[in-house]
Amino acid sequence: MVEQVNVTLPELGRGFHLITSYIASELPRLPEKGMVNIFLQHTSAALTLNENADPSVRDDFETVFNKLVRENDPDYTHTLEGSDDMPAHAKSSLLGASVTIPVSNHRLALGMWQGIYLCEFRNYGGPRRLVITVYS
Amino acid sequence: MVEQVNVTLPELGRGFHLITSYIASELPRLPEKGMVNIFLQHTSAALTLNENADPSVRDDFETVFNKLVRENDPDYTHTLEGSDDMPAHAKSSLLGASVTIPVSNHRLALGMWQGIYLCEFRNYGGPRRLVITVYS
Amino acid sequence: MVEQVNVTLPELGRGFHLITSYIASELPRLPEKGMVNIFLQHTSAALTLNENADPSVRDDFETVFNKLVRENDPDYTHTLEGSDDMPAHAKSSLLGASVTIPVSNHRLALGMWQGIYLCEFRNYGGPRRLVITVYS
Repeated sequence: MVEQVNVTLPELGRGFHLITSYIASELPRLPEKGMVNIFLQHTSAALTLNENADPSVRDDFETVFNKLVRENDPDYTHTLEGSDDMPAHAKSSLLGASVTIPVSNHRLALGMWQGIYLCEFRNYGGPRRLVITVYS
Repeated sequence: MVEQVNVTLPELGRGFHLITSYIASELPRLPEKGMVNIFLQHTSAALTLNENADPSVRDDFETVFNKLVRENDPDYTHTLEGSDDMPAHAKSSLLGASVTIPVSNHRLALGMWQGIYLCEFRNYGGPRRLVITVYS
Repeated sequence: MVEQVNVTLPELGRGFHLITSYIASELPRLPEKGMVNIFLQHTSAALTLNENADPSVRDDFETVFNKLVRENDPDYTHTLEGSDDMPAHAKSSLLGASVTIPVSNHRLALGMWQGIYLCEFRNYGGPRRLVITVYS
């Protein structure tokens, strides 16, 4: 059995944002056992799972990713949409457009410290659309 | 319900290649709602989703990944298969061997700008095998 | 149909470890066609698929990832848990917390050279918990 919901996230600024509660509030009733796939329909943002407690982790993610993929590299050719654009595409693929999470006992079977991050790589990314699919 | 097809991609040169149309032509009729997993059976190439319009994005991906994981690093020990081999393994894991895409209304629910990339990291990678699984 | 098992990996040291045989021994009987998702409930380790033969590849992965995300960067703010902690979070997201593998003919449809890696990024990470979900 497959259930699917479309969700639009409110616009979030550049950076890494914990969206676990927001996602949980949008989910249909979860099955006893199954899987949830959360899919982002964009190419300059990403979804990942990481530490859900200390905001300094999300701050440092921004630092790490800005060093991994530099802006204003003179070797880039895709530059018309701004200095944040090509790095945003690369960062998006490094983290990926979707996360798949098991469901156990009608709940997301996340580890104690795992949260869902929306990773916004554009300075002005606008609202972001998700497709959430639950299967059981 | 699960359907599965095996696909061999024609040999593509080193670089990032848009294969959305090729994949779509190999898919069975898609369900109203479901998921598609596309899985690459190799360790020196990858699949990812990214911008489907401007070829300069794919060119710049090659630039970004060659800077992220350098060839000819004297610290590498796995060097027998050529200078492109160990970096190819690392790049493969950074992007991943599979993509999972929701299906809505009998179509891949990709965003407007999302395409499927085959990322070939070897100079001469040969044909690449995929397993495509559709579940509904 | 969905089946699920919880597995705790014995403590493995920092580095990249081939766990394919261990995982295979924990799987329920696999369906003729389907998917397996292996999900790690932690934020400072990861799962990936890569070369299953030459141990030098796993050694070089440690080299590559230590260069990608440096320890002791003075720009990090999340430093209380040790110099390996923030880099471990970043590496975890770069590789991801889960792998999804197709099942064909009652077996994992891995390529000839593909193995499952547990990537331990902490110096003392402790045992790691997995949720394995099989659907068909």
